[in-house]
Amino acid sequence: MNYVSYQACHAGVPGSKLEIAGVRFNLSPMSDQFVDIILDSINKVDVSNIWSQTDHTSTVYRGEASHVFDALKACHLYAYRPGVHMVLEATISKGCPGDGDFDFNQIQSSEKINESNLCAINFPIIGKFSVYPMGSDHYMPIIEKIVNYGIDQNVISGTGHYVTFLDGTVHEIYRYLEEVFHLLDKSVSHFVIQVSLLSNLPEDEINE
Amino acid sequence: MNYVSYQACHAGVPGSKLEIAGVRFNLSPMSDQFVDIILDSINKVDVSNIWSQTDHTSTVYRGEASHVFDALKACHLYAYRPGVHMVLEATISKGCPGDGDFDFNQIQSSEKINESNLCAINFPIIGKFSVYPMGSDHYMPIIEKIVNYGIDQNVISGTGHYVTFLDGTVHEIYRYLEEVFHLLDKSVSHFVIQVSLLSNLPEDEINE
Repeated sequence: MNYVSYQACHAGVPGSKLEIAGVRFNLSPMSDQFVDIILDSINKVDVSNIWSQTDHTSTVYRGEASHVFDALKACHLYAYRPGVHMVLEATISKGCPGDGDFDFNQIQSSEKINESNLCAINFPIIGKFSVYPMGSDHYMPIIEKIVNYGIDQNVISGTGHYVTFLDGTVHEIYRYLEEVFHLLDKSVSHFVIQVSLLSNLPEDEINE
Repeated sequence: MNYVSYQACHAGVPGSKLEIAGVRFNLSPMSDQFVDIILDSINKVDVSNIWSQTDHTSTVYRGEASHVFDALKACHLYAYRPGVHMVLEATISKGCPGDGDFDFNQIQSSEKINESNLCAINFPIIGKFSVYPMGSDHYMPIIEKIVNYGIDQNVISGTGHYVTFLDGTVHEIYRYLEEVFHLLDKSVSHFVIQVSLLSNLPEDEINE
């Protein structure tokens, strides 16, 4: 394999001039039926507003931020099965100096085209997330602002080593994560949100 | 919940003066037997050199870097089951300005105390990882160096949006990740390695 080179990149200068946002995620349904659950969900999402690619490790969506969040939430909700413990792990990112204006689709609609199909699906989530504002010495105050905004929104259940904990309905959590994206977008040119969202925990069954 | 405050933190100044490293990870065995696999594995790891805590979302190990890597690799290998697709997701971190000198154990031994039990377990891994050197404008050259070192070590299979892809035996991948940790440790005061490691992919079965 050839060496990579980021010599032409500069911190503070996004590689994509079109403001392409993106997510790379994977679903882990802890069930013998995991292949069917994952493939069924990926195939159900309307990806006509975004660029989409699934490889052996994960799926990538790229495009305008609201469309990326719409498709990500749709894929997560379509994979939900009552009683099946599942983890969604996602890396949401914008502004990498090494990115570029490629791998995106022309937008077909300004709306969140999956959202109307998702209202009927709802379930509780617990999770953990971290934000990484890159190339800035001012990152701790940005993180503080984001966590405290989540406390105001009642979706934060605590903090732990390396993460902040999430607790809410899946719709509440995605609303907050999209707000976090825009808070970061206003504060720093390159940032990453790393999040894991868990549903149907075995502990819940034991307590019922 | 009370607001968080990082006003006393400063970029470039690690909160832990004892150089405590840590990992927060979760295992996702995609099997109806996931509870037994996870609990069995967590209980088998010798954690006498590290601080360890499992919550509803994940497990944290903290301590000296080589002991953290030893315990993480042990937990991953003990959870391996032939034919069971599994993902390990881990956030490895050192130097956060908001960290502190708490939640660690006195080291009982300078050795990697789990390693001798792990030699008999080996399996192929594919994965993806990203590194986040925090609080520095110089992060792209650091990332370049780490990826190119992995190419020299023959554990990198390509690059994609937001990640670099890993391919090797589980022992090769952990050796590289621990080297990445030390490369980062020499370059920047606060850094994060975010990695997902997959084994027993259903695609492999289809191809066999």
